[in-house]
Amino acid sequence: MTALFKASGLITLTTDFGVSDPYAGVMKGAILGRCADARLIDLTHDIPAYQPQLAGFWLARSWRYFPEGTVHLAVVDPGVGTERAMALAIGAGQVFVAPDNGLLDAVIDSLPAPQVRVFGLDDLQELQLPRPSFTFHGRDIFAPLVAEIAANRLMPNWLGLASERRIASSEKPAAEGQVIWIDHYGNLITNLRAAALSAFQQPLLRYRERLINIYPSYGYAAYGELMALINAWGVLEIAQSQGHAQQFLLATVGESVCLLEGVQ
Amino acid sequence: MTALFKASGLITLTTDFGVSDPYAGVMKGAILGRCADARLIDLTHDIPAYQPQLAGFWLARSWRYFPEGTVHLAVVDPGVGTERAMALAIGAGQVFVAPDNGLLDAVIDSLPAPQVRVFGLDDLQELQLPRPSFTFHGRDIFAPLVAEIAANRLMPNWLGLASERRIASSEKPAAEGQVIWIDHYGNLITNLRAAALSAFQQPLLRYRERLINIYPSYGYAAYGELMALINAWGVLEIAQSQGHAQQFLLATVGESVCLLEGVQ
Amino acid sequence: MTALFKASGLITLTTDFGVSDPYAGVMKGAILGRCADARLIDLTHDIPAYQPQLAGFWLARSWRYFPEGTVHLAVVDPGVGTERAMALAIGAGQVFVAPDNGLLDAVIDSLPAPQVRVFGLDDLQELQLPRPSFTFHGRDIFAPLVAEIAANRLMPNWLGLASERRIASSEKPAAEGQVIWIDHYGNLITNLRAAALSAFQQPLLRYRERLINIYPSYGYAAYGELMALINAWGVLEIAQSQGHAQQFLLATVGESVCLLEGVQ
Repeated sequence: MTALFKASGLITLTTDFGVSDPYAGVMKGAILGRCADARLIDLTHDIPAYQPQLAGFWLARSWRYFPEGTVHLAVVDPGVGTERAMALAIGAGQVFVAPDNGLLDAVIDSLPAPQVRVFGLDDLQELQLPRPSFTFHGRDIFAPLVAEIAANRLMPNWLGLASERRIASSEKPAAEGQVIWIDHYGNLITNLRAAALSAFQQPLLRYRERLINIYPSYGYAAYGELMALINAWGVLEIAQSQGHAQQFLLATVGESVCLLEGVQ
Repeated sequence: MTALFKASGLITLTTDFGVSDPYAGVMKGAILGRCADARLIDLTHDIPAYQPQLAGFWLARSWRYFPEGTVHLAVVDPGVGTERAMALAIGAGQVFVAPDNGLLDAVIDSLPAPQVRVFGLDDLQELQLPRPSFTFHGRDIFAPLVAEIAANRLMPNWLGLASERRIASSEKPAAEGQVIWIDHYGNLITNLRAAALSAFQQPLLRYRERLINIYPSYGYAAYGELMALINAWGVLEIAQSQGHAQQFLLATVGESVCLLEGVQ
Repeated sequence: MTALFKASGLITLTTDFGVSDPYAGVMKGAILGRCADARLIDLTHDIPAYQPQLAGFWLARSWRYFPEGTVHLAVVDPGVGTERAMALAIGAGQVFVAPDNGLLDAVIDSLPAPQVRVFGLDDLQELQLPRPSFTFHGRDIFAPLVAEIAANRLMPNWLGLASERRIASSEKPAAEGQVIWIDHYGNLITNLRAAALSAFQQPLLRYRERLINIYPSYGYAAYGELMALINAWGVLEIAQSQGHAQQFLLATVGESVCLLEGVQ
């Protein structure tokens, strides 16, 4: 069997740690202590706590912009200190490591021919970890683990047990969804995929009681106009031209959106 | 003609992306995919959206602290997805790349003997970019472009067309200006330059109806005193000793300031 | 005498600069100009201004996760531009550099056999620094200094004068303390150390009029329950299971906490 993965030393980090505390920085120290040449890229540390699936949403849409050999570590870990397992996925020449809490579902769904493995602390005995804290496995377990993978000393496809889990994409992309993220510009990012548009001749997006036009890009709308578009991540988003849609609408994550046919 | 620029692999990033979304991280991935040895430094990702000139303000005051061979990428791009061109400037052994929307004006004005070039997507055909998204040219166009420059595979002085534009510094530095930035400490940073002080025997700064003393440094004022000083960036700023001037004054960006003669 | 320190090129940064302004980025540029191979890790830039001891609190709890050869630069510097000295500590194969304002006290207390040295700008003449600004010594003095140390060109144990100062740990860890930091999750981090628990058979933590149970980890409490635990940094913290203790309690830094005996 040929190696599925050859590490380049590049590691991305996706967490709910925020950037005001030294938590992410210390996790980086723990990585560099075992892999001095690792190059570390912050994807985001502002995933909402207790929402690992949002880390997966972004990681699934981000990995294709990283080169082969990248190790992606995602830690949103409400079950830290309990018996929850850990998981990793291998695909497209990249590796994804996270708590086994559903975080990797969207990633696995986005990978061609993914290998998935599930493992526990017992499977990491050769790392000779000091006794981990109860509350910071990012620093005490995940950091040394991804360091060993990034240093090509630990083969991810040998770790723990293979898992058959494969999240099947729904055959027909949904026409009903939710706002799942509000970005720095105030754009409302939904979980409606671009492919859902093809079922409509002239699709419109309904949000609250409004019907919103779908444009190719921000520049097509009038100043201040509310619009929808397929964003650079392949999902529908609601934006306000030259404005901040969230503040304009007082929008919140979780609100419903759906596609409608505009042709009568 | 001798080479004007030899890249060191160091790239700085100045954007309005914020740090809560994975946008800056993914742009870094796109850079590292083409220039694995690039070293990436965040200057700031908190430039206000739609204000490219503020990215230029900071970049013009920051580049002299970076070594020769640095490539500076600045993306504040309200015209993304439209036909706006791109621009680059070469000077002091460094390169500056941005949308052609005025962002580089202050940089060009700050450089000794700058070369300026304007180019479009057509000029980047040898990069063999995949079709870019409509909304994220930072990731899809600028990232691969600066990666090629940082890898010394693309000579910036051959790109597109030379531009004669040169923003002439006003001969006489203005004595009237505005608050243009409020920093993390609550200091009010103005666009009044240090050189403007030389026209006065004993200058005072007027803000609203107050006349504020100008001191050499923070330590010269009494506890809680409002003061002005020439900051480390060569412009006048209003600060409160051991305090937070913005909260004390409820100050906002855009307020007027002017220098007055204190000697009667 | 053998060398106490061999730099690896790794430098951490702990400041009160925030991340919205380009201050930290420019400080990194000034480092890289003198030590092109430095690898820079942000510990945090959100130490409260005027509270250097909080930088020391975190640095004292973070350094053990970094490899030997690391240089730690901490700049919380309300006395910038005045005659305050600078200090460095050497211990555990690492070096710590900061203004001499008490910032390093907790670090020195945490190190085995620390060497402490105090120095001024006059001691840095061989660095041939340009005249520093009055307000940004992080960029103009500390950045070139740690770059020279990280490049192994300046031996930290030769700089300035040895200082005998050694902050003696109190023999008996205190049972009364304060909330000193509120983290990204809303957890209230106190200065009560784990060792203080050993004086009690069944310790409880008192906060306001509440008596709070102390659990091994977050997972032991009921949904929404307020709890205390020894966190991953060796101090007591108050957390709310699956919640945000600060928002639940409207807690603030500085509030008192104390340990009590729960066995009657």
